[in-house]
Amino acid sequence: MANFQIDNEQIEEIRSLIEAQQNKKLQKKLNQFHYADIAEIIQELTNEEALFLVKLLDSTKTADALAELDEDIREGIIKQLSVKEIADEIEELDTDDAADLIAELPEARQEKVFNEISDEALAEDLRELLNYDENTAGGLMAKELVKVQEDLSVLKCVNAMRAQAENVTRVHSIYVVDSKNRLKGRLSLKDLITANSLALVKDISIPKVDFVTDDTEGEEVAKIMSKYDLEAIPVVNDKKELLGRITIDDIVDFIKEEAEEDYLLAAGVSADVEADDTIWDLSKARLPWLFLGLIGGLGSVFILQNFEEIMAQPQLRNLFFYTPLIAAMAGNVGVQSSAIIVQGLANDVVKGSLISRLMKEVGLSLINGLALSILLVLFGQTINQELIFSFTIAIAMTSVIIVAALVGTFVPIILDKNGVDPAIATGPFITTCNDIFGIYLFFYIAKIILQF
Amino acid sequence: MANFQIDNEQIEEIRSLIEAQQNKKLQKKLNQFHYADIAEIIQELTNEEALFLVKLLDSTKTADALAELDEDIREGIIKQLSVKEIADEIEELDTDDAADLIAELPEARQEKVFNEISDEALAEDLRELLNYDENTAGGLMAKELVKVQEDLSVLKCVNAMRAQAENVTRVHSIYVVDSKNRLKGRLSLKDLITANSLALVKDISIPKVDFVTDDTEGEEVAKIMSKYDLEAIPVVNDKKELLGRITIDDIVDFIKEEAEEDYLLAAGVSADVEADDTIWDLSKARLPWLFLGLIGGLGSVFILQNFEEIMAQPQLRNLFFYTPLIAAMAGNVGVQSSAIIVQGLANDVVKGSLISRLMKEVGLSLINGLALSILLVLFGQTINQELIFSFTIAIAMTSVIIVAALVGTFVPIILDKNGVDPAIATGPFITTCNDIFGIYLFFYIAKIILQF
Repeated sequence: MANFQIDNEQIEEIRSLIEAQQNKKLQKKLNQFHYADIAEIIQELTNEEALFLVKLLDSTKTADALAELDEDIREGIIKQLSVKEIADEIEELDTDDAADLIAELPEARQEKVFNEISDEALAEDLRELLNYDENTAGGLMAKELVKVQEDLSVLKCVNAMRAQAENVTRVHSIYVVDSKNRLKGRLSLKDLITANSLALVKDISIPKVDFVTDDTEGEEVAKIMSKYDLEAIPVVNDKKELLGRITIDDIVDFIKEEAEEDYLLAAGVSADVEADDTIWDLSKARLPWLFLGLIGGLGSVFILQNFEEIMAQPQLRNLFFYTPLIAAMAGNVGVQSSAIIVQGLANDVVKGSLISRLMKEVGLSLINGLALSILLVLFGQTINQELIFSFTIAIAMTSVIIVAALVGTFVPIILDKNGVDPAIATGPFITTCNDIFGIYLFFYIAKIILQF
Repeated sequence: MANFQIDNEQIEEIRSLIEAQQNKKLQKKLNQFHYADIAEIIQELTNEEALFLVKLLDSTKTADALAELDEDIREGIIKQLSVKEIADEIEELDTDDAADLIAELPEARQEKVFNEISDEALAEDLRELLNYDENTAGGLMAKELVKVQEDLSVLKCVNAMRAQAENVTRVHSIYVVDSKNRLKGRLSLKDLITANSLALVKDISIPKVDFVTDDTEGEEVAKIMSKYDLEAIPVVNDKKELLGRITIDDIVDFIKEEAEEDYLLAAGVSADVEADDTIWDLSKARLPWLFLGLIGGLGSVFILQNFEEIMAQPQLRNLFFYTPLIAAMAGNVGVQSSAIIVQGLANDVVKGSLISRLMKEVGLSLINGLALSILLVLFGQTINQELIFSFTIAIAMTSVIIVAALVGTFVPIILDKNGVDPAIATGPFITTCNDIFGIYLFFYIAKIILQF
């Protein structure tokens, strides 16, 4: 409905109902909510309150709500559920969500949960899914789908479909397989309805069907599904046997998570932390990048020591006042260049040779450097700086900008060519490199021009 | 099929077919491709080649391919099409894509295109869509949907649905409206099939249906659809009249574009540029942020001038060697803090009071500052720096880290509370502020301890 926001008032009402143990009222209240809202409510509660709620509600709704929760909150709740209770929740979930949930348990507990699952076929499906890396098509797929054998008559096909459709939340597509479960095509519901009931499935099936293999990377699956506007895609193994399917809602979550990781990585935060994580987790995610910055800063100390002599010369020592400016320019330009390249590589729009790409950055840097130089010289005039000194800084700064842009472009492209995620290059890594290069270059060029 | 990549060989083959004007062969070759692949091929061609291709292919496929193209490439092609040709393409498209395409034309041309559209109702729909901001539900929706009046019998309802479904690529949901077109509920296909054909639609309709109003922001629509795993959502006006619907594929594109914008913004690149844009466009997107950095750098010049006196003292002048380190730390920490907050605000996970949030950052900064200080003092020992000097730098640096973290946390929260997109704070803005604050604080604290 129109009211999508859980407000504090509602949370407070639920809390007081929990405290008063008014189970009937609580159930009535909570039944109004979508499971995604229940998940949002649970995030706001204490661990005990959440546990009370999970045990009170019927397991379909809690299972789905559990699947929506943040991992750390879910872990806290599941720890306190019995093996039997966990198995009950898992039987309610789609296999992809169920496998994710089991994967979070310690291995010994996983086995116990499997023993409690009465549906043998489900247990086998889940064991299969657990074998996949979570960032592959196999790790993203669910086993629930509707498939029919190509040799069936239309009449039998409809019956087979009905039986399967009961376990599948949204049908999307009906897949056609041969006797060895190999993907052969798909059925259009319209063709099925208008066909003669004695016709065979293979006569009316559409042989053209998009698919991915189980080892396809999640990022690639997301690209394919969004490029071709697919709402579901079947997953096959290398023998083309139909294993499962991935639906667009899981891909939406995947795209959002990937974007968040890249964003945080660019800001020098190792992925997988959130504002509400503990201080220790946050510190662990941030410290390595700061450590890198420290190493870079100490590198700059060494470089600047080499130019200590000019501190004795009042005309020249002002160069030192410009080090933060140069470091900022080198860092900013490098991050800009690398972000554009990283984004371009992700979207496959980085074309042409490396040389032409680098030449473009040189041109761009000259334009930006010139514009900034004009301002720099004007500033120099207002503080009565010698013109030769202002020009020297402007020339050195423009050189730094050019080199920084080249480094920012070159590094991600080279990383990408060597199979390393170029996203790691945007942010502290490029900034640190460029700080050191930039400051050295600045003093070196100033030395040449001013001949100290 | 499995081969989702357009390779250079295929592009070259198509190019030579265009050059040789082998129209039949070319058509046969291109008919194998999905329109999204045709779009990818067009991106690789020159403007003339692309135009040849667009005019050669049947308009359903080219229309969809045009809708998939990057805006600037599409503009180049459409400029060279006649008003009649554009109208033909538009009649093939879904209304949301058609409206986006028309919106890119100069106003005078828009009118001419409208005059060429023979379908009056379509023209009216498109005019309506053009009135919306592209980032609202109204700007994202398409007019195509299947709706039935609640007073119809099931029999009449099925006929009404069939007629509408022809124009709708994917049905998703059947919406129920009253005589004034107000959204009343939705129909389940299963209920419809099993119902008595004389029953009324309102007897079998499900009154609970999620919807958004036409002025809902795109970001909010994306949040709702991904939270509730919706594949389509109806859009209504303030009278609850059904206007259109938004499908998940458009939301996937929207989420990707938003994520890219935030990523580039954090890197100091105004959104909406790509690696393959012109030097001028790229320069325009980057220069303002560099200008901000320049202002910050010049601010640092002023601050450092105030500490010029210590250049004469060999024991103290080394402080200047640490300015890049301090600037780097202040910048990195600030960007980390702000990125985590910006991400948290977007996901609604920033809870608790501002004070407790800031205290957490202080704690975090103390841990990180301490860890880095140990390394800094060890480094000082290896270069035979006086211990008091090393400790001074460590204390000053830790203070800078704390302040930088506070600024990085405070600024986005305040921006968000005042309705400004906090994403603008991550990146050059925070870095520049923190550079200036950090350097001043560093020298000020050093001065207090070392009493120069």
